[in-house]
Amino acid sequence: MTCAVLSIGTELTRGELANSNGAWLAAELTAIGFEVTEHVVVDDDRGRIVEALRRLAQRARVVVSTGGLGPTTDDVTTEAVAAAVGAALARDAASLDHIRRRVEKAGRTMTPSNAKQADFPEGADILPNPIGTAPGFGVRIGECVAFFMPGVPREMKRMFEEQVAPRVRALASNNLFQSRLRTFGLPESAVGEKLAGVEQAFPGTTIGYRAHFPEIEVKVLAKAASHASARDLCERATAEVRARLGSYAYGEADDTFAGVVGRALRARGWTLAIAESCTGGLVGHMLTREPGASDFLLLDAVTYANSAKSQILGVDEETIRWHGAVSPEVAGAMAEGARRVSGADVALSLTGIAGPSGGSDAKPVGTVYVALARADGATEVVHRVFAGDRAQIQLLASYAGLRMLRELCVSRTPERVGEASSLRDRG
Amino acid sequence: MTCAVLSIGTELTRGELANSNGAWLAAELTAIGFEVTEHVVVDDDRGRIVEALRRLAQRARVVVSTGGLGPTTDDVTTEAVAAAVGAALARDAASLDHIRRRVEKAGRTMTPSNAKQADFPEGADILPNPIGTAPGFGVRIGECVAFFMPGVPREMKRMFEEQVAPRVRALASNNLFQSRLRTFGLPESAVGEKLAGVEQAFPGTTIGYRAHFPEIEVKVLAKAASHASARDLCERATAEVRARLGSYAYGEADDTFAGVVGRALRARGWTLAIAESCTGGLVGHMLTREPGASDFLLLDAVTYANSAKSQILGVDEETIRWHGAVSPEVAGAMAEGARRVSGADVALSLTGIAGPSGGSDAKPVGTVYVALARADGATEVVHRVFAGDRAQIQLLASYAGLRMLRELCVSRTPERVGEASSLRDRG
Repeated sequence: MTCAVLSIGTELTRGELANSNGAWLAAELTAIGFEVTEHVVVDDDRGRIVEALRRLAQRARVVVSTGGLGPTTDDVTTEAVAAAVGAALARDAASLDHIRRRVEKAGRTMTPSNAKQADFPEGADILPNPIGTAPGFGVRIGECVAFFMPGVPREMKRMFEEQVAPRVRALASNNLFQSRLRTFGLPESAVGEKLAGVEQAFPGTTIGYRAHFPEIEVKVLAKAASHASARDLCERATAEVRARLGSYAYGEADDTFAGVVGRALRARGWTLAIAESCTGGLVGHMLTREPGASDFLLLDAVTYANSAKSQILGVDEETIRWHGAVSPEVAGAMAEGARRVSGADVALSLTGIAGPSGGSDAKPVGTVYVALARADGATEVVHRVFAGDRAQIQLLASYAGLRMLRELCVSRTPERVGEASSLRDRG
Repeated sequence: MTCAVLSIGTELTRGELANSNGAWLAAELTAIGFEVTEHVVVDDDRGRIVEALRRLAQRARVVVSTGGLGPTTDDVTTEAVAAAVGAALARDAASLDHIRRRVEKAGRTMTPSNAKQADFPEGADILPNPIGTAPGFGVRIGECVAFFMPGVPREMKRMFEEQVAPRVRALASNNLFQSRLRTFGLPESAVGEKLAGVEQAFPGTTIGYRAHFPEIEVKVLAKAASHASARDLCERATAEVRARLGSYAYGEADDTFAGVVGRALRARGWTLAIAESCTGGLVGHMLTREPGASDFLLLDAVTYANSAKSQILGVDEETIRWHGAVSPEVAGAMAEGARRVSGADVALSLTGIAGPSGGSDAKPVGTVYVALARADGATEVVHRVFAGDRAQIQLLASYAGLRMLRELCVSRTPERVGEASSLRDRG
């Protein structure tokens, strides 16, 4: 069965925003079993929305659309759909209630523009939005069913999974199965080389790659005579992919790298302290974005100033003066200090030059020292030089630190992590 | 003049790859002065490419396309274009030479599939590709000019800049001007209401809104007889928009809220310390993502465990036991402790319940206390209850903290920030 994606918004046609919703929906619809043959992006223009919708409805069994359901005057999707199907707009009492409750809960007064979000083409199938104001809706256009969802990715994804996917699943051909693996540590070309020949070894599979800096997601799509045999084929091919990628494949589907590290720490029963400098709190943020970080995280001391490194972590001022704040000596002392003052089992530290300024010939922008003060009393320091802009260097350094933690949790005797590393035993 | 973007590739329609080329081209074409009204993404299907191209050529003055020019059998764009314009394919000798040189330079032998990349619809305007194998080309379809470029972003961008942009610039209308304002603190519906009537007061302007949680971006687009008058119209309308939004409009274009707060601190010459709990390092991360944070940030102590609050910040254990870690008393003591141990001029602290668990009737999930220990020795504590999931609560709390800092920088006597706030003078 064919399916089309319609994305609505002038911010999209003008290129102010990449159409990430479109790619996400296409991947989900493909995984369900649809052949997605076309995406269309139109601006917030009533006439163009009507025309695109009518045209897509003639060729696709299902149209999934996002955007233009907001409260402002430039949001015209609902009106356009009503015009396309020749229905009047009708206000839905339950949706109006839902919107009023949300608006009032936020301490605001309901306005006519809020109320507009409770209008739908007569006879529409209304899709609740438990985490936002704008409900979605479905309509039938000839042989086609079309669904309209808000453009906010979080709301759209939840509405698709809870409301749209169950409604369209029966229309899809049910002979596809997909798995997703998350990888970190190899560039896309190297992941591709490791997986060369897998598609040929498992006929009916297609391997797709999606770069999401600094990770590469690998998708294995299997097509077979039935859903059960597609699932079986997918599982066998995925096992091969996993074996070839080894520890670079850190998780599946919606796992996050920090989440996997947190689980590993919890499994060990270890508490953690962090001392950050160049990453400015990013490692702590990544770990605490996941629920349950309080099980293991005691402290993240972002000691940005040298005085804070001495004051909070007890790093010797002489060490900073002599070796510089970006040095293996200071990295090691930061980790040891964080472990000592917090009483944590292990402590991670990061100090470096995220740029854009502050580099030198000896220590260029991107230079980072990552140290791990271990439960056995030893401290390991790794030296890396990352390429990229400030945000990329901060992210790569944070990932490098999390990877050291992960390896420590997995093996008692951690392996070398970087190109250049030194192990200092102080136990 | 209107313009459309056509992206070709099954990897795009299946959502294996986000259509970043489409967004990039749309932004470039908008900047040149085109009104980009539609993007279409089709799979590598000859019939669908022909149909999409014919349709777009009827409505747009310029069509810019990428993808499907590769050497493999699934690359059918050139054939499809030839069919759409009713021309035969002809091999271009100069292109064939270029391809042969590149293939041989890479140590490979020329094959028929490489040679296929030197085929073009008869009469096409060939666009050289100095950094890749596949040349691009342009054709005329009725009133429309259409350009076809490779899908590799690096090659496409260079070809667009060097070959396509100079050819289309004369066709663009140069009578548009746009400004962008960044706002925080009002929901989209409230921003829309504040700006009701601006479009009518300044005929020729269109106001657009983009929600990027928790911010709303406002775009003012002006269309006039000339570029100069569009610019003038845009500036006048933007001044009105800015006046109506007051301090909710915190910046322009690519400003960030944390960047604006950092600039305000720098302008004051104040140093900052932060003590975070529920936000887990997010405030520090937001501030240090911007270059130059070391000018003002001394310390961000993410004291996740109660022991760390006492150990690092000197928060009285009795205070934590008696009032709880999520309390105005502990928030105040955290800020004062951070200011004391770091020697910073001002200190911000945040303690709360980000969820999903840990809430109670008295302190539900979303409860956050934000405290500011000021240079004058006074400490202000604000109580907020945010709605949302863990990530949203962390983000809203961080914004609330940054807003308190901003207001402190702007006015010596900070105003009330939240719905419920208390000011405790300890000076």
